[in-house]
Amino acid sequence: MTRFRYLSFLTDYGLEDGFVAACHGVAARIAPHARVIDVTHLVPPGDVRRGAAVLAQTVPYLPPAVHVAVVDPGVGTARRGVAVAAGDSVFVGPDNGLLSWAVTASGGATRAVSLTNRELWLGNVAATFHGRDIFMPVAAHLASEVELAAAGAEIDVTDLVALPAPERLIRDSIAEGEVLTVDRFGNVQLAITAADAAEIGLESGASALIRSGRHQLIVPYRDMFGAVAPGELVAYPDSAGLVSIAVNGGDAAQRLGLPPGARVSIAAASPTIRP
Amino acid sequence: MTRFRYLSFLTDYGLEDGFVAACHGVAARIAPHARVIDVTHLVPPGDVRRGAAVLAQTVPYLPPAVHVAVVDPGVGTARRGVAVAAGDSVFVGPDNGLLSWAVTASGGATRAVSLTNRELWLGNVAATFHGRDIFMPVAAHLASEVELAAAGAEIDVTDLVALPAPERLIRDSIAEGEVLTVDRFGNVQLAITAADAAEIGLESGASALIRSGRHQLIVPYRDMFGAVAPGELVAYPDSAGLVSIAVNGGDAAQRLGLPPGARVSIAAASPTIRP
Amino acid sequence: MTRFRYLSFLTDYGLEDGFVAACHGVAARIAPHARVIDVTHLVPPGDVRRGAAVLAQTVPYLPPAVHVAVVDPGVGTARRGVAVAAGDSVFVGPDNGLLSWAVTASGGATRAVSLTNRELWLGNVAATFHGRDIFMPVAAHLASEVELAAAGAEIDVTDLVALPAPERLIRDSIAEGEVLTVDRFGNVQLAITAADAAEIGLESGASALIRSGRHQLIVPYRDMFGAVAPGELVAYPDSAGLVSIAVNGGDAAQRLGLPPGARVSIAAASPTIRP
Repeated sequence: MTRFRYLSFLTDYGLEDGFVAACHGVAARIAPHARVIDVTHLVPPGDVRRGAAVLAQTVPYLPPAVHVAVVDPGVGTARRGVAVAAGDSVFVGPDNGLLSWAVTASGGATRAVSLTNRELWLGNVAATFHGRDIFMPVAAHLASEVELAAAGAEIDVTDLVALPAPERLIRDSIAEGEVLTVDRFGNVQLAITAADAAEIGLESGASALIRSGRHQLIVPYRDMFGAVAPGELVAYPDSAGLVSIAVNGGDAAQRLGLPPGARVSIAAASPTIRP
Repeated sequence: MTRFRYLSFLTDYGLEDGFVAACHGVAARIAPHARVIDVTHLVPPGDVRRGAAVLAQTVPYLPPAVHVAVVDPGVGTARRGVAVAAGDSVFVGPDNGLLSWAVTASGGATRAVSLTNRELWLGNVAATFHGRDIFMPVAAHLASEVELAAAGAEIDVTDLVALPAPERLIRDSIAEGEVLTVDRFGNVQLAITAADAAEIGLESGASALIRSGRHQLIVPYRDMFGAVAPGELVAYPDSAGLVSIAVNGGDAAQRLGLPPGARVSIAAASPTIRP
Repeated sequence: MTRFRYLSFLTDYGLEDGFVAACHGVAARIAPHARVIDVTHLVPPGDVRRGAAVLAQTVPYLPPAVHVAVVDPGVGTARRGVAVAAGDSVFVGPDNGLLSWAVTASGGATRAVSLTNRELWLGNVAATFHGRDIFMPVAAHLASEVELAAAGAEIDVTDLVALPAPERLIRDSIAEGEVLTVDRFGNVQLAITAADAAEIGLESGASALIRSGRHQLIVPYRDMFGAVAPGELVAYPDSAGLVSIAVNGGDAAQRLGLPPGARVSIAAASPTIRP
């Protein structure tokens, strides 16, 4: 019986070594029927939050799959490996919070096991490469004929490690949130939803007052960055449903000096406020 | 009915976010039979010309496919999305010229439609991510059972936006052209064909006089860069049939300071000319 | 008849051009049944040793395949192309040593041919792109119905070019070896095996005295980098069975200034030695 036709795979392994390929090879040997969709392997080394954000924003567009994610600064230490059922998929990886936002985005965990069944692992497990030796082989077995319960001891889903949700606060007419991610284009994605923006009265066509630290500026709030002239700043509801700040054709993160984690507030600019 | 077994995919999305994977997921859901060949996702952000050049030079080696290409600085603005039949393939992307050189390389457009049939799009379209929400789902449908005509309103192929051909001029015994691309190795590819070189009397084994701005130099013209000693400059007919300048084992673009778009002329060096 | 279900592919082509995709396209046209596992395409340009090391450490985890590897600074010159049978796989690439460590890791060459049968090549061969025009088409044919012997003239396996093994010397209680690779995380992999470490009396839990040039330092020898505090140096047997030096959560190569090729010695530190 084939349980899943797809595996997805997200890591911080980079692309210059053979680490990702070794895992693909392990998957091909155990589950030759399954196709692997690589989410990304360029998560900055050990950046669990970044990995969690990318995974959570991508999974809604993937087919039902066993999603393997490995950003695992604690590899080989006491942190356990887990497989978590959520929605129509299963998530496999270290229990360090990496999976938690994607599990939530998939409707929440319905069951979980600790990966204790060594029969599903490779014969020799390297202490520093659980992606190849534990997570991928277990995932490939789960994509084939192995039931979740066979992968290890059942655990209470409320015991799974969860990352704190991104900081986000709506008070009066101001939405505050951290910079969640900066993408390839330098677009600055805030942990403020498009719905939050509507709630504080910020509508497309208006101006937004953006504050970070002692800096503030007013930028147009539009449906998309293409609505302003090249080189101009703009805030807009992005493709993940969050408010992002962009420079049309440029790099907003660099221009504004806003790295992930920075605190930003946003409000509708009244016509009389001047920057 | 399965119309195409392959999709190809070229973007400027980069590999550090989940953008490419989201599109792969959309393709897998709609056209699970199709395989995706990634052309590249490292086109510099918004560099339509570079994307067009890579696509045109790669497509001749790909199997019949729906080729999806998205370098789209005008996403969300008035520029339309199109699907263009050419040769044994279909090209899908923004109508901003990105597809034009590849369409020409495939024998020219035979039919085209504007992507107006929203039934082939994802349910919610983000204004800034048409690759995920419009281009890839339409392409996946076209790879499955949907006819080109069903994707939208037919348009005159002469109305498609075409990039100006790379600048290139043959006069007397001199070939002039712009630097079309610089590849990973720093090889400088000119918009001058190997046939142009023959026409101006430049044959393998001869010396080439290369001018750019006020600089000029004489380099051997050979069949390949390996024909000169390591560290030496050489001009040669490259794997795309164009004249390239290389440093054997080195980076010619860096050595010569020749970025894409720079103007270069080339001629057969008469024996008496000295650099 | 289908001989191999998989191709693997390692090059120094990079990911920003269409070179890798053109090869994927060639494979898809000739061997549509075969899946391609990309090992890496980010080998530094022309770095045959690095390519050989990555290939040799990855192949043991791949399924039986035709492994295509192209790091080929001598492309177009007299160096020949070869196909080499080893273990349950076939290796295809330039005969410049690139394949040699992986062939050894697969049990050694049993047969080899020089790629002289032009009927298996593409129609027009570019002097500088044998990956696309010779190696991949030959490999795809070998993955389909073509026997090894049909690819060209049989050659003596002892005539294949072999890279010198990484420098490594065990004397008395000291193991000396070169830095074989530095991975994405900055982990420094030595050409010293975990078995060598045991042989010189270095056991997990002990301290290791590491010398390079005039520098020396004492670091814990543990099962994994996670056994020391973040920011601390550690030596450990890595996932390829070699001794590596890491900084937990950091970049050891940068901290220690140890590039590939540097000479390092390691010994068990006696309790009285102080750094």
